[in-house]
Amino acid sequence: VTRNDPQKRRRHCNSLPEPADVRFVLGLMSGTSCDGVDAVIVAIRGCGLAMRVTPLAHRHEPYPRALRARLLRAMCPARTSTQELAGLHADVGRFYAAAACRAIDQWGAGRRPDLVGCHGQTICHLADRRTGSATLQIGEAAFVAAATGCPVVCDFRQADLAVGGQGAPLVPWTDLVLFGHPRMARAVQNIGGIANVTFLPAGAAPADVIAFDTGPGNMVIDELVRVVTGGRGAFDVDGGMAARGRVLKRVLSRWLRHPYFLRRPPKSAGREEFGRGFVAKELPRLRAVSNRPEDWLATATAFTAKSIVDAYRRFLPCVKPLRSPAGARRGGRSAGIQDAVPAVDEILVGGGGAANATLLAMLAGELPGVLIRPMDRDGITARTKEAISFAMLAAAFVDGVPANLPQVTGARYPAVLGKLCLPPHRRPACS
Amino acid sequence: VTRNDPQKRRRHCNSLPEPADVRFVLGLMSGTSCDGVDAVIVAIRGCGLAMRVTPLAHRHEPYPRALRARLLRAMCPARTSTQELAGLHADVGRFYAAAACRAIDQWGAGRRPDLVGCHGQTICHLADRRTGSATLQIGEAAFVAAATGCPVVCDFRQADLAVGGQGAPLVPWTDLVLFGHPRMARAVQNIGGIANVTFLPAGAAPADVIAFDTGPGNMVIDELVRVVTGGRGAFDVDGGMAARGRVLKRVLSRWLRHPYFLRRPPKSAGREEFGRGFVAKELPRLRAVSNRPEDWLATATAFTAKSIVDAYRRFLPCVKPLRSPAGARRGGRSAGIQDAVPAVDEILVGGGGAANATLLAMLAGELPGVLIRPMDRDGITARTKEAISFAMLAAAFVDGVPANLPQVTGARYPAVLGKLCLPPHRRPACS
Repeated sequence: VTRNDPQKRRRHCNSLPEPADVRFVLGLMSGTSCDGVDAVIVAIRGCGLAMRVTPLAHRHEPYPRALRARLLRAMCPARTSTQELAGLHADVGRFYAAAACRAIDQWGAGRRPDLVGCHGQTICHLADRRTGSATLQIGEAAFVAAATGCPVVCDFRQADLAVGGQGAPLVPWTDLVLFGHPRMARAVQNIGGIANVTFLPAGAAPADVIAFDTGPGNMVIDELVRVVTGGRGAFDVDGGMAARGRVLKRVLSRWLRHPYFLRRPPKSAGREEFGRGFVAKELPRLRAVSNRPEDWLATATAFTAKSIVDAYRRFLPCVKPLRSPAGARRGGRSAGIQDAVPAVDEILVGGGGAANATLLAMLAGELPGVLIRPMDRDGITARTKEAISFAMLAAAFVDGVPANLPQVTGARYPAVLGKLCLPPHRRPACS
Repeated sequence: VTRNDPQKRRRHCNSLPEPADVRFVLGLMSGTSCDGVDAVIVAIRGCGLAMRVTPLAHRHEPYPRALRARLLRAMCPARTSTQELAGLHADVGRFYAAAACRAIDQWGAGRRPDLVGCHGQTICHLADRRTGSATLQIGEAAFVAAATGCPVVCDFRQADLAVGGQGAPLVPWTDLVLFGHPRMARAVQNIGGIANVTFLPAGAAPADVIAFDTGPGNMVIDELVRVVTGGRGAFDVDGGMAARGRVLKRVLSRWLRHPYFLRRPPKSAGREEFGRGFVAKELPRLRAVSNRPEDWLATATAFTAKSIVDAYRRFLPCVKPLRSPAGARRGGRSAGIQDAVPAVDEILVGGGGAANATLLAMLAGELPGVLIRPMDRDGITARTKEAISFAMLAAAFVDGVPANLPQVTGARYPAVLGKLCLPPHRRPACS
């Protein structure tokens, strides 16, 4: 349960009354890995930033093989047909409906949730089209409403797009509600393929939150493991290989001059910057300096750690700032970046990178005095956090609370995220 | 204004309170002709079947040429790309937003509507997939909400799909509200490419309404005109050609044995049944009997008129029924179908066929004593009726009133149609 000084948080609640009763909300999230849907049921008390969330149940439902194959074939960029996308939208919706029913049955409270939040499966996200951003989440929510008998909020990203935002990331608001602290400055650092941070200053209001992709997460590490093991390994277990290696300083220093790191937020990174192309290009350079794969892994791991810490030094408030802000803008590491001390008290690490001990040790080495720990607590884990977030965003829709952060998504102003659909009038299938 | 004995209608209002104030609702509809969007603003008083509707403004906004071309290329069945559909969804949404703003400005009431209903552009409708029906309307409503500052209800068809229906037709409920009469049995007969009827018995409750496609509308007539004029003519102006011709009885009788006419509702027809293929196949037969194109047109016009009247005789309540219901089910015209007298007091004709004097005269000749007139009155015209319907369905969503008719769509039970999205918190672009 995250309370974190409710008194303080009430200030940001947009003067909404705190509902007397607890609301049970089901959250459904399908991530970019496209492996299925995570269903969580949470108890929500209060609203806005005073929302308090208690996870009650979690269930992962994998996509049937054929459905997953169709989704992967439809993932942008992809040639497809209009009828296939219309069919997928309905079929994924029917799958979500069945998954929601199973999660409710497993919860076993003998009742149905008050509300459902359903993110859907992103099959396309285009942030920089000439005529404006576009995004597409599929999996029709009306099927979930019909099967569960619950009102469902879905399609969260479009409202941010409609006010000029990129429709992502949407979790910084829920990070603030879940992890904001009245006296501690926290960084919620997710390390997936790409690494992203939500920075929550002590007692932060929504406008104080900073969030962006810091750069590579496990992407370069995993690709190197794939290469050196001939495809047998997928990732560096516990950071073991990297721990036995030596960081190749000149290569690392070169990598850290990648132009992505100098761009100011809002910004987002992807496979375009740090995917296979990056590794293919840099492998000869690594080989030229060392023939030990352990050194390559150590360097890649330091790359992730250093780029995270550099991002903090450049773009988060610092106790002792960069020597020259102009130099920082030009981005030279020579301009005193090593001496800057980010004003971060605690880092909550999520994603696969949280299991990489070498990476965490490197982070700790760069940031003495900062508490670094996995974000997992009270059932809010890296696995469940996204689904929990969309349960919370569904409640925020019903409360009329805007939950995009304009400084994070690039939106012109706050928007109430989502679309509400209502259950039919008869008894649903699953209760 | 359609009042039609409010006392009577209150019975069906689901005990909802009648709002004291008028609601101004903007309706946006893009039809299958894919020519643009019709925007209407209506004043709505009351709710449910006691809803009273006054049209206030209408504006048609054509799609820009390039956008229309993209939509036509994406129309099912079509090869396309996921990114193109995601982009179209956003771009059509932005077009709707601009169209909505212009309609509001043109209305000139110095205020914004209370609510918007936005049907979207159907690019795919599959009623008989193996895994269930699927439908896809595009044109993201969040853009309309952001531009107008109004709550928007969109995506009306999915809720009916989710309870096992085909998601169409959805206008029989609004036909009932607009045209239902306490003492007269009315048929709202739309004659577009395909002809469809909504039958409203006197004092009908929703469960009493019958609606289905009767068969060909202008489709066969228009195609014959195209053929005989070498493509210069598109339709038979005022039914003039048909008026100069003679109905070829044996051909007509053959056509009326088409298996579609015998299928029981719910049913729907399309180009598959009565499009170019039908005409190409039947043209030699026409030529064999007569060399006068006027005779061919007279026969095609009688085909539409007779198939409408036959449908009434077969599937609507009759004062004097078919001699043998078994024969009717087998569908033989020999089974006394000519003698059946449908219990219809008045036919309100809409669509392009309402301008075909010969067609109306043939209908009248088959149904002596039945009042036949265009549905257009008080601003509710064939052109505006669809957009008005979706303004009404938006209000029904807000009122929590189910507006699908299960016996019409094939749904298992009533559903509240649509999804609600809310405007952002700042001043919108267009007011």
